[in-house]
Amino acid sequence: MKLNSHSKDLETLGFNIYEKEMPIPSNEYVRVDASSLKDFVKRVFIALGVSSGDAEIVADVLVAADLMGISSHGVQRLERYVGGVKRGVINLKPNMRFDVDFGAIAILNADNGFGQIAALKAIEYAIDKANRFGIGMVLVKHSHHFGIAGYYVLKAVERNMIGICMTNSEPLIAYINSVERYLGTNPIAFAAPRKTPPPILFDAAMSIVPIGKIEIYGKIGRDIPMGWVIGVDGSLLHGDAKKILSSIRRKEAAILPIGGYLEDYGGHKGSGLALIVDILSGILSGAAWGHHVLHTLSDKPANVGHTLIAIDISKFIDLEEFLNRVEAMVKEIKSLRKAPWADNIWIPGEKAWLTMQTRLKIGIPIHQNLLNSLKSIAQQLNIEFDIEKIKK
Amino acid sequence: MKLNSHSKDLETLGFNIYEKEMPIPSNEYVRVDASSLKDFVKRVFIALGVSSGDAEIVADVLVAADLMGISSHGVQRLERYVGGVKRGVINLKPNMRFDVDFGAIAILNADNGFGQIAALKAIEYAIDKANRFGIGMVLVKHSHHFGIAGYYVLKAVERNMIGICMTNSEPLIAYINSVERYLGTNPIAFAAPRKTPPPILFDAAMSIVPIGKIEIYGKIGRDIPMGWVIGVDGSLLHGDAKKILSSIRRKEAAILPIGGYLEDYGGHKGSGLALIVDILSGILSGAAWGHHVLHTLSDKPANVGHTLIAIDISKFIDLEEFLNRVEAMVKEIKSLRKAPWADNIWIPGEKAWLTMQTRLKIGIPIHQNLLNSLKSIAQQLNIEFDIEKIKK
Repeated sequence: MKLNSHSKDLETLGFNIYEKEMPIPSNEYVRVDASSLKDFVKRVFIALGVSSGDAEIVADVLVAADLMGISSHGVQRLERYVGGVKRGVINLKPNMRFDVDFGAIAILNADNGFGQIAALKAIEYAIDKANRFGIGMVLVKHSHHFGIAGYYVLKAVERNMIGICMTNSEPLIAYINSVERYLGTNPIAFAAPRKTPPPILFDAAMSIVPIGKIEIYGKIGRDIPMGWVIGVDGSLLHGDAKKILSSIRRKEAAILPIGGYLEDYGGHKGSGLALIVDILSGILSGAAWGHHVLHTLSDKPANVGHTLIAIDISKFIDLEEFLNRVEAMVKEIKSLRKAPWADNIWIPGEKAWLTMQTRLKIGIPIHQNLLNSLKSIAQQLNIEFDIEKIKK
Repeated sequence: MKLNSHSKDLETLGFNIYEKEMPIPSNEYVRVDASSLKDFVKRVFIALGVSSGDAEIVADVLVAADLMGISSHGVQRLERYVGGVKRGVINLKPNMRFDVDFGAIAILNADNGFGQIAALKAIEYAIDKANRFGIGMVLVKHSHHFGIAGYYVLKAVERNMIGICMTNSEPLIAYINSVERYLGTNPIAFAAPRKTPPPILFDAAMSIVPIGKIEIYGKIGRDIPMGWVIGVDGSLLHGDAKKILSSIRRKEAAILPIGGYLEDYGGHKGSGLALIVDILSGILSGAAWGHHVLHTLSDKPANVGHTLIAIDISKFIDLEEFLNRVEAMVKEIKSLRKAPWADNIWIPGEKAWLTMQTRLKIGIPIHQNLLNSLKSIAQQLNIEFDIEKIKK
């Protein structure tokens, strides 16, 4: 992501600063410069033996998550990736190749390389195919965790296309009527261009919440509400986030799908959608599926599967007309009668974009513990620790 | 749908008879023979001036819904379609043509004909394109309500393909943080073949419940639980289903998206998914979107938009291997630890399939009031009313 690619003033949406995810308590955080953070992450990967080009991409995806206010997928994950490299399960010199290439579709064998490199290659090929056939669909197998799904669909938007991205992931969701971790949180991301930034960007786990949110609640000492997590005995767990997180880690609890644990509120829809993501990304691609998908810090490669789709708008409709129609729809949604409790009616992607603009201006908040862990990674790898702090 | 196409014994799944939706109270229903019901519906359309071929298709889609236990989309809707024809908003002699045809994509202009005819034509063309390019995506504009989305994706399964279908619809959902009807219930359907029937079949509105469920609760006098419907003042409506239904009809209430009214439980995900369905089916296709989509009983054609996608499995992976992988996944899901309250762990599509087998055997339950309304349609059109009742 070009860090200044959408650097319009925040005022477009009527804000001075806005952060989707606030650093709480603020005195435990320092603000750092996005470019210098990215540069540091890149040097970490280079020190591990990753090529400069690949390191640039993985660093960009990680820091983009922090910029967008999805810290669970940001540099907090650096340790996980470093661990994956050290265990040898992430292949630093993968022979990524298209095992299947037919018309508008392809399967990329990622050869256990970084998920970020594979997904980027896959969306680029899908864009190329969409240009030739109107739509392109590229599946990826033998991959690893790829960070935020939203990153890749924005690549399609840069080419005035619609992007769709899905991935399976380590098992965390309890399938409807069951109580065990089986399906991944299996996000679906979708992006479409608008006349002016921000583009429409939807990026959501098919679980009620991503695991990262439970981690964050643990860190800030906030209680987990009823209805997010189920224990293997069928009881709904709520309260102490750290305790609940450790139950999930010990496989004594699982996250519920969107719609919750009952069909009455659509739990079968959430787990059905997660299943669809897995059938496309895991079963059809030749990757692992369900509880066969591994965490990066396992003994074997994770064999994650992804789905990347690009749709070339101009092959369907005049681009200008599409953009006008989107603008009309957005205007209508923005002027709907607001719920009494609501601060705003948001279009998907606006919060992330505002957060990015804010953080490009005032820096990315990094928790002191995380900063220390980054420092210790630097020491282990014998590289300079020079992330630039931003004075308040 | 060939009514006996999947007529394996119910015992495959361990049932004697099973109905997804029970006729309650049972003494108000009669059981009728599916073929004779379909034949009657077909003759109704022919009497209205519909060609025999088109009448066959529309009747088949309607009766398929009844067979699958989705009575809200079954012959109960006949009156609506008859009304649409009489008002002249449904074009009986449409000039359906592909306004766009490029590589793996196309846009079908349905010329305000029946949605069922258009969607079937579109999925057949998508299948053809998938055969040539691995994937085919056909959008439809200037269409009408098409019945159950699940019908069309099963056409892909008959060709050993994966089918995906979406449609927008008359506004019913309150977009997250708003309280008005704006988005349709915008269903997503997905089907994939299995070694033996039933195929995987997911078909779900992006609202917590389809409007049809609220209608049924009204009919059987069951209370609406908290969390399905929101009033324009922001209050959550529950209780008397008939009263709530009439509030929705008067636009004083709206159905909530999957995930409900708060972002805490994923309401932004449900309304985001409904928005995506509309961007593809409505905005990109050139059809209406949001609250511009009309009901069949309006003064003007509804201009509904659909999305039909076929994915040719064999272009990605050996079909046998795909089917084996699906079977392995299904077996794993079926043997997950069951929640204490759960009767069964269901794979999407199993309930509909069991219901269909059951109803092919013992007949489709039709409420007496509905039977009377069908009789009165027959009288108006001066056709014989000869639906065959099944003796208990």
